[in-house]
Amino acid sequence: MSTHFSASYSFTMDIRLEKKQENRVRLLETLGREGARLIQFFRMGDNMEAEEITIEFYATSVEHGEKVVAALQDLPGVLESWATDTTMAIHDGGKLEISPTSSVDNADELAMAYTPGVARVCQEIHKNPERAFDLTIRQNCVAVVSDGTAVLGLGNIGPLAAMPVMEGKAVLFKAFGRVDAFPLCVKTKTPEELIDFVEKVAPSFGGINLEDIAAPACFQVEQELKKRLDIPVFHDDQHGTAVVALAALLNSLKLSGKKIGELKMVINGFGAAGVACAKMFAEAGVKNIIPCDRAGAIYRGRTQGMNSVKEECAQIFNPNNEQGSLSEVIQGADIFIGLSGPGTLKREDVLKMAPKPIIFAMANPIPEILPEEIADLDCLIATGRSDYPNQINNVLCFPGIFRGALDCRASDINEAMKLAAAQAIADCVDDEQLAQGIIIPSAFHPGVADFVAERVEQAARDSGVARI
Amino acid sequence: MSTHFSASYSFTMDIRLEKKQENRVRLLETLGREGARLIQFFRMGDNMEAEEITIEFYATSVEHGEKVVAALQDLPGVLESWATDTTMAIHDGGKLEISPTSSVDNADELAMAYTPGVARVCQEIHKNPERAFDLTIRQNCVAVVSDGTAVLGLGNIGPLAAMPVMEGKAVLFKAFGRVDAFPLCVKTKTPEELIDFVEKVAPSFGGINLEDIAAPACFQVEQELKKRLDIPVFHDDQHGTAVVALAALLNSLKLSGKKIGELKMVINGFGAAGVACAKMFAEAGVKNIIPCDRAGAIYRGRTQGMNSVKEECAQIFNPNNEQGSLSEVIQGADIFIGLSGPGTLKREDVLKMAPKPIIFAMANPIPEILPEEIADLDCLIATGRSDYPNQINNVLCFPGIFRGALDCRASDINEAMKLAAAQAIADCVDDEQLAQGIIIPSAFHPGVADFVAERVEQAARDSGVARI
Repeated sequence: MSTHFSASYSFTMDIRLEKKQENRVRLLETLGREGARLIQFFRMGDNMEAEEITIEFYATSVEHGEKVVAALQDLPGVLESWATDTTMAIHDGGKLEISPTSSVDNADELAMAYTPGVARVCQEIHKNPERAFDLTIRQNCVAVVSDGTAVLGLGNIGPLAAMPVMEGKAVLFKAFGRVDAFPLCVKTKTPEELIDFVEKVAPSFGGINLEDIAAPACFQVEQELKKRLDIPVFHDDQHGTAVVALAALLNSLKLSGKKIGELKMVINGFGAAGVACAKMFAEAGVKNIIPCDRAGAIYRGRTQGMNSVKEECAQIFNPNNEQGSLSEVIQGADIFIGLSGPGTLKREDVLKMAPKPIIFAMANPIPEILPEEIADLDCLIATGRSDYPNQINNVLCFPGIFRGALDCRASDINEAMKLAAAQAIADCVDDEQLAQGIIIPSAFHPGVADFVAERVEQAARDSGVARI
Repeated sequence: MSTHFSASYSFTMDIRLEKKQENRVRLLETLGREGARLIQFFRMGDNMEAEEITIEFYATSVEHGEKVVAALQDLPGVLESWATDTTMAIHDGGKLEISPTSSVDNADELAMAYTPGVARVCQEIHKNPERAFDLTIRQNCVAVVSDGTAVLGLGNIGPLAAMPVMEGKAVLFKAFGRVDAFPLCVKTKTPEELIDFVEKVAPSFGGINLEDIAAPACFQVEQELKKRLDIPVFHDDQHGTAVVALAALLNSLKLSGKKIGELKMVINGFGAAGVACAKMFAEAGVKNIIPCDRAGAIYRGRTQGMNSVKEECAQIFNPNNEQGSLSEVIQGADIFIGLSGPGTLKREDVLKMAPKPIIFAMANPIPEILPEEIADLDCLIATGRSDYPNQINNVLCFPGIFRGALDCRASDINEAMKLAAAQAIADCVDDEQLAQGIIIPSAFHPGVADFVAERVEQAARDSGVARI
């Protein structure tokens, strides 16, 4: 599919090579001829006859990587070799460790951290439940909850196979936001079961991050849990995406001179993220939003492929009740928001849009349109990928938004906090830096999570949900 | 109640003291007069007029500690002072941290640990579910699950207030057994709800440690989960206690020369731990076990205060169908096993027992009988407390038994593994060391968890539940 080299197809080879200059040359030539990208090369040691070499290279697919490995293994002069799928190896044994913050190296420490000392701590919380936020991990711990029904672009692969993603999310929570997060992948069959599950486990956590739950179940799960729980509940696929996309939109408008109230926006793909984006953009001032799904525009009176969420959205959005395929309603649009699938936006569609169109092609891993297909046009384009400019990456939002919510013990993550997060992310790009390829900060922009957290905390205080 | 100094009543005072020798003297005199035990004394700094002193002391209760603090604060020469409840402070912010084991410091690392690289890892598990034990935290992660219905000696204090204990348990799992453990305190109302909860969350874990769940619900929960899940399920209050008590029994028999098949054993307190001890001791060869509860011996035909578990036990145990109060059936007993409440065994009762009686008074924090009450008698006594010799402490068992089970990917923790654990713990005390005050190793005995793990793993292999 993709001819992009990616770290997700990274291989490491340890090779024992007969010590001749021609062997070295052949090795590197072969790497080049096989189309691998050399990332690291170490000489680990040698003796009279042989040297030990470690090579890391990126490939464009597993098959490609295996082909490169086979080619290297078969070279004359290669005495022995061991190949590792580096990406797979990173996940070996899981990606999280749970460590004590207090030591139990002697009887006194044991008596303080565990019985009998811990009894007083329990009694304190029993008397005053609020104290759980001081005296337990609730203070800083978020559950990353998934039922595995809509994992990445892989679909309903179930809770067991979803674990690596949820662990990865927990890694990002800690690395970017200093939030302790724990992955809970759960075998539930209905939204009601998932709601009950999360309600039951809530005493162990200070916040709930819902993840990779299929639409429309995700809407019901989030809404009901927000009602039942007094800790923040946040479905990142919806709101994380919407917050970061709004940040990109705010900066795009600055750059293009378009006005938010006058935009015609087409949103293609109306699952969890599409619905959340539409609602958030409307909140931010966009008036003419036309939601589309595989059957084209969603409009009042449409009967085909509707569900309760789409019915509700047909009432709120598409004020001119436009009908037709994506190719039809895209006519004259200022902005295209893609949360659908690969290649769903054609170059011809872009040519039909208003001047200086803005295109967020966020389908992963293959966007609705590749930047190179419209590189010659005067437009702004952002994708969900790290290997193009303007990556709309949720990691810009969720670590900071939970950091801010936990720091003020917010009972909710509300609209005001989400808008504050979007504005904070947008503000990370200075006006002087703002350019066609820099409408959104990189995931590694220094201090972005703390900056988001600060603004989110302020918004929580102003909107009355902060509890300290 | 207790006049024992305990680290669980530990206080720290920072004092700014007018710089005169008499002030120092008065400070230390006051500590002594108020009955505090000085643990640490630091001079943190000084200037011309004053010095900064930090004092840590143990008290016998919170009230006692506060009285000492007040007395010190009021001393002449004390310019300023700040007091901290040290034990409480240890729990501040919770006792666990969740950290990434792989770094995400740049786009390539992000692409390997999270999207898009993680997708391949998910697909691998989706194809072959067993791979979850290699590629996720399942490999080394245990859930510490409680509904908060029987927490320590505190009773049904609910899930929120139970968290500090479950976090403490997770601390011990890591510190003693290198097992990552996560506390899940859950708001369930019935055993069925708890069973369903654990079944749903199982994909995230490699083992389930049940904790502080009231009897008889705990029996049903454990039995049913053992049936439904293919990972080890272990109710530590039952089996951890039974394993360590059996270890103490094995060494007591060595020392006293009594024979296991000829013992008369009275077990007082027939909740979770009492039932498990009875079953395990019978498994190990004890033939005459008389279970007692508040109403006295449990026998065939008793009608008062019975439940299904007691009915079952009345059939299995008490072969001579003895009836009567504890004081009556204790007559001629070789061993008393106490898992009941403070002071339920009297000195007169001990005098009625067979020569060289063995007494395990495990009620916490106050044993069935205090060792000092029978110090002059020729008997062996063990308690659950760290401040007397022979502490029967579950930490000797659960880190090692789970370590062993995880290392061979056992599908269960079965009877053979529990017996192996008990024998391993007993074997930690050499025959030369074995003495009245050393029938069981200390919780800090070097390498005990690894030794237990090794024997448990072997037992798992021999009994066919090991999967690697």
